[in-house]
Amino acid sequence: MELAILGGTGDIGEGLAMRFASDTDHTITIGSRDAAKATERASTYEERLSEHGVETGINGTDNSSAAAGADVVILAIPPHHVGDTVEALTADDVLSDQLLISPAVGMQGDGDGLHYRPPSTGSVTEFVAERAPESVPVAGAFHNLAADRLADLEATLDVDTLVVADDPTISERVVALTADLAGVRPIPAGPLSNATEVESLTPLLINIARYNEDMHDVGVSFT
Amino acid sequence: MELAILGGTGDIGEGLAMRFASDTDHTITIGSRDAAKATERASTYEERLSEHGVETGINGTDNSSAAAGADVVILAIPPHHVGDTVEALTADDVLSDQLLISPAVGMQGDGDGLHYRPPSTGSVTEFVAERAPESVPVAGAFHNLAADRLADLEATLDVDTLVVADDPTISERVVALTADLAGVRPIPAGPLSNATEVESLTPLLINIARYNEDMHDVGVSFT
Repeated sequence: MELAILGGTGDIGEGLAMRFASDTDHTITIGSRDAAKATERASTYEERLSEHGVETGINGTDNSSAAAGADVVILAIPPHHVGDTVEALTADDVLSDQLLISPAVGMQGDGDGLHYRPPSTGSVTEFVAERAPESVPVAGAFHNLAADRLADLEATLDVDTLVVADDPTISERVVALTADLAGVRPIPAGPLSNATEVESLTPLLINIARYNEDMHDVGVSFT
Repeated sequence: MELAILGGTGDIGEGLAMRFASDTDHTITIGSRDAAKATERASTYEERLSEHGVETGINGTDNSSAAAGADVVILAIPPHHVGDTVEALTADDVLSDQLLISPAVGMQGDGDGLHYRPPSTGSVTEFVAERAPESVPVAGAFHNLAADRLADLEATLDVDTLVVADDPTISERVVALTADLAGVRPIPAGPLSNATEVESLTPLLINIARYNEDMHDVGVSFT
């Protein structure tokens, strides 16, 4: 399967690229607004994977080219840019039957911690769905995975991530994709209208990490 | 220590009463708007504890009398009544140096799931703090514990609960109180302004239970 990770040079994009490259046989392409940067970072990821005994190629290109050839597109893009990115892909006629997965969360910090600040649509995941062509399926997942922990292939995960999608067969596809990652258990949490409750977990995790010295890069497990 | 659980005849009140009675030596008083109902339910709880080999007394009385004699007051009251209850306790001059703990969460359901609907203050926990006299310390805790699982003394917990309080010494008191419950790990999550992110977890847990057959009464563990 062809997996594109747009924003693949950012923290969460890097983490997901490293894990999908390490744990699956999918062809991974990272996209960036700057194709040269994506190519350069892809080489860095390959080197780090090789240091961990994983010999695999990662492609790097611009976001639009990455999405064009993909079966699944992960939008690892900051929440305030993801709408423009999806609109640009739509305008360029890049999107047809790719499955879009949104991991972004809108947050704002104050002196006490991070707080959930979704777009007026209710969640970034729904915001993406609104901007994508109607025929393109959209799911939310990977919101609550700590980027640094993913990127560190020595780190044990043993964490859950929540999956939201309006179509149960889409949810099942994302669950199957995610279940291939070692130590990540995908859990369905209903349709896109439940994405708000899913996304809200991310600032909570960051606040927990801040107030507990031994809980850096904390994840969640539902038990 | 004297522990009052207002709304102690409700689901979460019952669960907390059963666990605190089972796992600690605190004197437990459950309060209700209806004192007779509280007395009757307290007897039922005592019988069920006795069936599990725990011989202990639980008092039942009206909310105001329960709070008056307590060191710690847990407000296990529905979110739309908790403000009135705290205002009534304040008007009756019942509150002086009790520590108030708020476990309530404002939620609203639609066809897809439950959604977080806090009061305009930002969270029920902050709403309680606004209504309590300034000298009375307020913390948030126990939001994300499943009532039925608490009430079933055969059920294993092994779950976390989050604690918010503006004063770190108050947070420490709640952490110490909670740590006595077998299988419940208290985790500080910062000041009251972080209560929104803590409370948001409750509708997520209920949505997860709804969309996963084997996750009834699910709890959370931060790992």
